[in-house]
Amino acid sequence: MAQERQNVHNFAAGPSPLPTDVLEIAAASLLNHDGTGMGICELSHRGKEFKQIIEGAEQNLRNLLEIPDNYAVLFSQGGGTGQFSSVVLNVLAARRLQHANTSYDDYKPPKIDYVVTGSWSSKAYAEAQRLCAPPIPGAKPSAEPRIAATSKPSKYTGLPKHDEYEFSEDAAFVYYCENETINGIQFPHDSTSPVSFPFDKVPKDVPIVADYSSSFLSRPIPHLERHAIIYAGAQKNLGPSGTTVIVVRKDLLVDTSEAFALGNVPPTPITMEYKVLADNSSLYNTPPTFPIYVCALVLDKLNKAEKGLLSMEATNRAKADLLYSTLDEAEAKGVVRCVVREKDARSWMNVTFEILGEGKEKAFLDGAEKQGFRQLKGHRSVGGIRASIYNAVTYDSVKALTDYIKAFGN
Amino acid sequence: MAQERQNVHNFAAGPSPLPTDVLEIAAASLLNHDGTGMGICELSHRGKEFKQIIEGAEQNLRNLLEIPDNYAVLFSQGGGTGQFSSVVLNVLAARRLQHANTSYDDYKPPKIDYVVTGSWSSKAYAEAQRLCAPPIPGAKPSAEPRIAATSKPSKYTGLPKHDEYEFSEDAAFVYYCENETINGIQFPHDSTSPVSFPFDKVPKDVPIVADYSSSFLSRPIPHLERHAIIYAGAQKNLGPSGTTVIVVRKDLLVDTSEAFALGNVPPTPITMEYKVLADNSSLYNTPPTFPIYVCALVLDKLNKAEKGLLSMEATNRAKADLLYSTLDEAEAKGVVRCVVREKDARSWMNVTFEILGEGKEKAFLDGAEKQGFRQLKGHRSVGGIRASIYNAVTYDSVKALTDYIKAFGN
Repeated sequence: MAQERQNVHNFAAGPSPLPTDVLEIAAASLLNHDGTGMGICELSHRGKEFKQIIEGAEQNLRNLLEIPDNYAVLFSQGGGTGQFSSVVLNVLAARRLQHANTSYDDYKPPKIDYVVTGSWSSKAYAEAQRLCAPPIPGAKPSAEPRIAATSKPSKYTGLPKHDEYEFSEDAAFVYYCENETINGIQFPHDSTSPVSFPFDKVPKDVPIVADYSSSFLSRPIPHLERHAIIYAGAQKNLGPSGTTVIVVRKDLLVDTSEAFALGNVPPTPITMEYKVLADNSSLYNTPPTFPIYVCALVLDKLNKAEKGLLSMEATNRAKADLLYSTLDEAEAKGVVRCVVREKDARSWMNVTFEILGEGKEKAFLDGAEKQGFRQLKGHRSVGGIRASIYNAVTYDSVKALTDYIKAFGN
Repeated sequence: MAQERQNVHNFAAGPSPLPTDVLEIAAASLLNHDGTGMGICELSHRGKEFKQIIEGAEQNLRNLLEIPDNYAVLFSQGGGTGQFSSVVLNVLAARRLQHANTSYDDYKPPKIDYVVTGSWSSKAYAEAQRLCAPPIPGAKPSAEPRIAATSKPSKYTGLPKHDEYEFSEDAAFVYYCENETINGIQFPHDSTSPVSFPFDKVPKDVPIVADYSSSFLSRPIPHLERHAIIYAGAQKNLGPSGTTVIVVRKDLLVDTSEAFALGNVPPTPITMEYKVLADNSSLYNTPPTFPIYVCALVLDKLNKAEKGLLSMEATNRAKADLLYSTLDEAEAKGVVRCVVREKDARSWMNVTFEILGEGKEKAFLDGAEKQGFRQLKGHRSVGGIRASIYNAVTYDSVKALTDYIKAFGN
């Protein structure tokens, strides 16, 4: 079966390709996990086998990202969209408890500073607005979400410049999405770039929350310790859909019911409370055991790479450089147009472009399909072409795609 | 690998055994789904392959349970515990919108009637209490959860009698758990039993919500149309952990933000809103595709059985009868003690018993392990032995266990 896979190049934006050797182990484990005679989906999440899996996954993740001890690592249910709600609920609860001696009447709803650079951060902002509205007509809102910076005026074809950010003095948190999957926008890690994320401008006590869903584990995370929460839906570089990893500073593990009782915070459904997840080692209720198992296999494989995420970074840089340079050449010939106009803001993970000329996009996709390129169609909300080149997409697959693009232009 | 599985009898309470033929198909699909050259976890949830899977699953479920058109069938993320919150949030929002012309000041928080018959319904009740507390100190609560009947005084070894129920006149909803996995308590389907669920006593306009997590698809659901919501975490009879099926009457698919703006309902995180799930055919954000795929395979298999759920019911009845009659004999000899004292309330799915005598439980479990019986230990909160005999546990496995119990007693 692995043989047949070699004729196909899968550029899906998520759920995305996984390493073939990982899938081979997972397939065997479905019927008989590690000689137990039982399949991985048939084992209790409280048994020793699964305990070993989830603990190993956490340890490998800690090694790979150098996560300090004052952070918890959680595997939650559902995808990144659930975290749009969870981060608001948990951080506002922590903030309220910091002011436990302030009465409801005296408590001032905090600002929440959203950096909106594409579809996902825009949805996260909208969710904060939903949840923080006044619980009673005429009452105070729970918080005041606002936009601290946005690249919406450019239709998300670039990122805000450093001087365009206006952070609040005392926000509950600052939120950004490191890589916007749909638009193909990513914050550059080179801090000297005029469009890098301006960590220095965020007041130092304000927690920073980052959605790393679509770039997690593709390279090291800069300024990890400056973040209060980093989360990532699994289905890009990490594993199958159905689980989300949350790296959360331990001071944010709070009893949300206690905060709710003080007033001015929305109630948190029990499965969304980080403290509940942390206190139960991510096993408060039955977790999605198979998705977590496959994540554990991927993490084990990454951890065994000689230079860990630095190896991954080098490969991903090479893949992105090759594809973008090919597109730049094709753009110079009038064949394609890259969607992201600001080169520093180009995503290493999701490469978006348009095929120029009447009927050409269909010809490009039809030809691609015949040659074994799969799932290249852009997101339904923006159209065009999107080649997602996550960790499990090989350099050879990217090379094959660039050959096709070159041939298509001639 | 299938061969090796035959020497092991898996009695796990969940995640639980799955049919071997289903796992064989799933294992092949992990590497190459249906000849696409891509694995099932590597396909977009918006592609034609997954669309076919989820639509087929819904259709098969509708056939098997004879679900009328005025109900939506949703596949959500996470487990049953998430639904403890979702049912409260969605039903209270629907209730509030029914009284959209009533001002906040005039709106009376409704009662919610919980039937508490074990650990899970007890947790569901606690979650309603958390979420419905006043959002501002001194304000009205969003609702008043109360206990309409409980078998707690008997330590959940039986079920309330019909005359012990005290339902409210105008509750937002009545809630019960059809099968309590931990305690091994299940409502009998014979309506003439003094401990059957008293549908006739619930005021006719009051919605009934049922947690069917651990008995779903083990037999037909009586009075399905008398329910407003039936939900079930997948990991018992249906598939791997990570998804929950919700069968919900369409009048409960409401805009929760609109209700929240009226006051006196808690805000609903977007991924928990049933209307959002329904409007997007369960694909609002990336669903747990692999767990749903395996559920689809199980549903397809069940749907092909000659008499559908009636075949399943007959087999499950025979398994339960065999095991309980063996335990009754062993109890008469002083070897074991069944936990559930009320015979009508005995679960067909989770059979709980104690091994009598100092050190005997350990001997029982050690001997069982040697003979290939797995995951027989009771839930950590109650101890003892629990044999879960879900759909995928064969009559032969149950027979083997009864042979072991008989031999142990001699």
